[in-house]
Amino acid sequence: MDIEAANQTAVKRMMSARPMLTRLAPAREVIPGMVDNLVLHAGPPIEWDRMSGPLRGAVIGALLFEGLAKDEKGAVGMIEAGEVEFAPCHHHGAVGPMAGVISASMEVYVIDNPTHGNQAYSNLNEGYGKVLRYGAYSEEVLDKLRWMNGTLGPVLREALEQSDGLDIRALLAEALHMGDEGHNRNKAGSLLYLKLLSPLIAKVVKDEGVEAEVLQFLGDNALSVLNPVMAACKVMADAAHGVEGSTVVTAMARNGTDFGVRVSGLGDDWFTAPAGIPEGLYFPGFTSEDANADIGDSTITETAGIGGFAMASAPAIVAFVSGTPQDALNTTLEMYEITVAEHEHFTMPPLEFRGTPTGIDIRKVVELGITPRINTGIAHKEPGVGQVGAGLVRPPKEIFEQALFAYAERYQL
Amino acid sequence: MDIEAANQTAVKRMMSARPMLTRLAPAREVIPGMVDNLVLHAGPPIEWDRMSGPLRGAVIGALLFEGLAKDEKGAVGMIEAGEVEFAPCHHHGAVGPMAGVISASMEVYVIDNPTHGNQAYSNLNEGYGKVLRYGAYSEEVLDKLRWMNGTLGPVLREALEQSDGLDIRALLAEALHMGDEGHNRNKAGSLLYLKLLSPLIAKVVKDEGVEAEVLQFLGDNALSVLNPVMAACKVMADAAHGVEGSTVVTAMARNGTDFGVRVSGLGDDWFTAPAGIPEGLYFPGFTSEDANADIGDSTITETAGIGGFAMASAPAIVAFVSGTPQDALNTTLEMYEITVAEHEHFTMPPLEFRGTPTGIDIRKVVELGITPRINTGIAHKEPGVGQVGAGLVRPPKEIFEQALFAYAERYQL
Repeated sequence: MDIEAANQTAVKRMMSARPMLTRLAPAREVIPGMVDNLVLHAGPPIEWDRMSGPLRGAVIGALLFEGLAKDEKGAVGMIEAGEVEFAPCHHHGAVGPMAGVISASMEVYVIDNPTHGNQAYSNLNEGYGKVLRYGAYSEEVLDKLRWMNGTLGPVLREALEQSDGLDIRALLAEALHMGDEGHNRNKAGSLLYLKLLSPLIAKVVKDEGVEAEVLQFLGDNALSVLNPVMAACKVMADAAHGVEGSTVVTAMARNGTDFGVRVSGLGDDWFTAPAGIPEGLYFPGFTSEDANADIGDSTITETAGIGGFAMASAPAIVAFVSGTPQDALNTTLEMYEITVAEHEHFTMPPLEFRGTPTGIDIRKVVELGITPRINTGIAHKEPGVGQVGAGLVRPPKEIFEQALFAYAERYQL
Repeated sequence: MDIEAANQTAVKRMMSARPMLTRLAPAREVIPGMVDNLVLHAGPPIEWDRMSGPLRGAVIGALLFEGLAKDEKGAVGMIEAGEVEFAPCHHHGAVGPMAGVISASMEVYVIDNPTHGNQAYSNLNEGYGKVLRYGAYSEEVLDKLRWMNGTLGPVLREALEQSDGLDIRALLAEALHMGDEGHNRNKAGSLLYLKLLSPLIAKVVKDEGVEAEVLQFLGDNALSVLNPVMAACKVMADAAHGVEGSTVVTAMARNGTDFGVRVSGLGDDWFTAPAGIPEGLYFPGFTSEDANADIGDSTITETAGIGGFAMASAPAIVAFVSGTPQDALNTTLEMYEITVAEHEHFTMPPLEFRGTPTGIDIRKVVELGITPRINTGIAHKEPGVGQVGAGLVRPPKEIFEQALFAYAERYQL
């Protein structure tokens, strides 16, 4: 078994994938296997009784949004009666930030990868404040979701129809030269996204009020592009999945209870352990006592070589996640220790345009005892409260050890 | 004479000035002293016979644009007959990039400084390619100017009327955290500008074609915000001008032949010497043989503590102006040697959020022999060709020596 060659194959596939945002559609129309009573969630598989507060809240919100339940009690009743099915977004080619809940009616982004022919999906970003992805499901939250599905989504869909698709890899490459790292800081990327969309939106929207509202929403939300970026990373990581003998990680995801990884050469198995609590800066009035365990599919960014791995590009992020600009540089430098390549397209000016560390090798993680560095938002542990901070987290070491054992067994080493 | 105190007064005024972009209007309606046969230009005063190629070209273009002349020959005839007056933009509260030519009909930005009550002006940015500011005056160039004056300008004017003014200091502070330095790299700033403008534009423009065209133009032009930024720097520098006893530089400007500076405590005198040729990277097909001497009012950015002085914030710019990210850091560090303050509002993440070096002290320049570092575009020496590269330049040392002599004489030291 030539593991090095297998890993180079995997990472080259990851880097040569070309994520193009081509369209939007309701989840039920495009996500394979999506059905009306299915709720997709972030992270590895989990059942209701083990779900954390924010994930439960988001599931309840989705059932209310879909009109499947009338109130919280009805929603919980349906779930306990076994009428709702759950599956990881990852099992359906999708990813979602934080709770990552996607239900059948929700408008989703479609990312095509013309290089390898695969597809990935993500939902629309709700912006800041009380939002479903942090487990909130008040009427205000549902109203915003309805506006997103009824107004924002259709506008974006029509706008994209005027284009040949938006090249998200090129957008990310540019954003990394503008102080973003692509996970927790997407300020520049979201503006580049607005730049690409705004003339298209102008062409298709007749109502000036609607148009102003959509442009304002996209411009004010420094996470507008996060979801297409995550789906882009998913399409890149999936392109690297399934390479016989490869020890490269192709998914890292958290459901708020467990942290899971998948490995290119180990099929669709998840290796999981309890998720940790991020260390970082808390918004006024909150402390780590309020924090939920690490949650969300957004670690797909680190899986694809950006996010925490590209932190050297984003010195300003330390004001948000804690630390100093030197820590940000060191974070990236450390990640070179556990990866198999430097990205061909994602370069970092502060490191003399060196490519980002890409393709986590479970062997190196276990051997060196260095786990991946992740930038993340921090959710309140109770549903409905929302974001309480942002910080840094690492996956539990044991999931990489489990994966390496499974590898040894599978390949009889 | 307490020079330190005078300099602190000057630089505090510079930093506390609050440039607000409030409106647009034709130059003749807002620029004090603007008359129909007056052509404003970049840099210190200069007459026709000493003007360089690109400035001559821009002057001819302005006369054609105004309809004062029918062709090049007619324009030159008018000038030689003494029918055209010339004055520096700086003498009329204005600034313009490269040739910096502003004529009476041109739409200009108005920047108000509510802190000190002064105003400054700049023209609209034409984008890349063949443009008046590089001395081009073909029909294509004039057509674009007509579109800018007839379509872009009115749209921006109406859009700004919907706002309370755009805070350009806040925009710059944010852009410096997104890889801009505010002079030669305004990528992030231009996107932030688009973000602020696009919902306003959506509200006021009825024609979707016009709207799409304007949004596309603003979004594609990574220099869209340069001109408001320059006027913002002018309003800040002017706020620091006229402080009795201050040795702080309040204007640096080049007309393509001479480089001139003004000093806070030395009234409206210019200290000038021949401008140098920038060192940098040339576009394919061009060399330093093609370069005009340094030109433009855009050095007002360095005067106000950004541009070359904030290069540490913009490591990606070295791909455009030459050098390495370490050189960019060193450039900023060197400028601390010749300045009197660290900016209160403009901070640089790569230097642990240190304020930019602000307020050039002519005493330090002369004593240490360190001249200011400037990021600049490079113009072809013949009119009509356009930009041939970008690079770094320093003003001639003797203008600071002249200023220091004048200071000694004026204050009898």
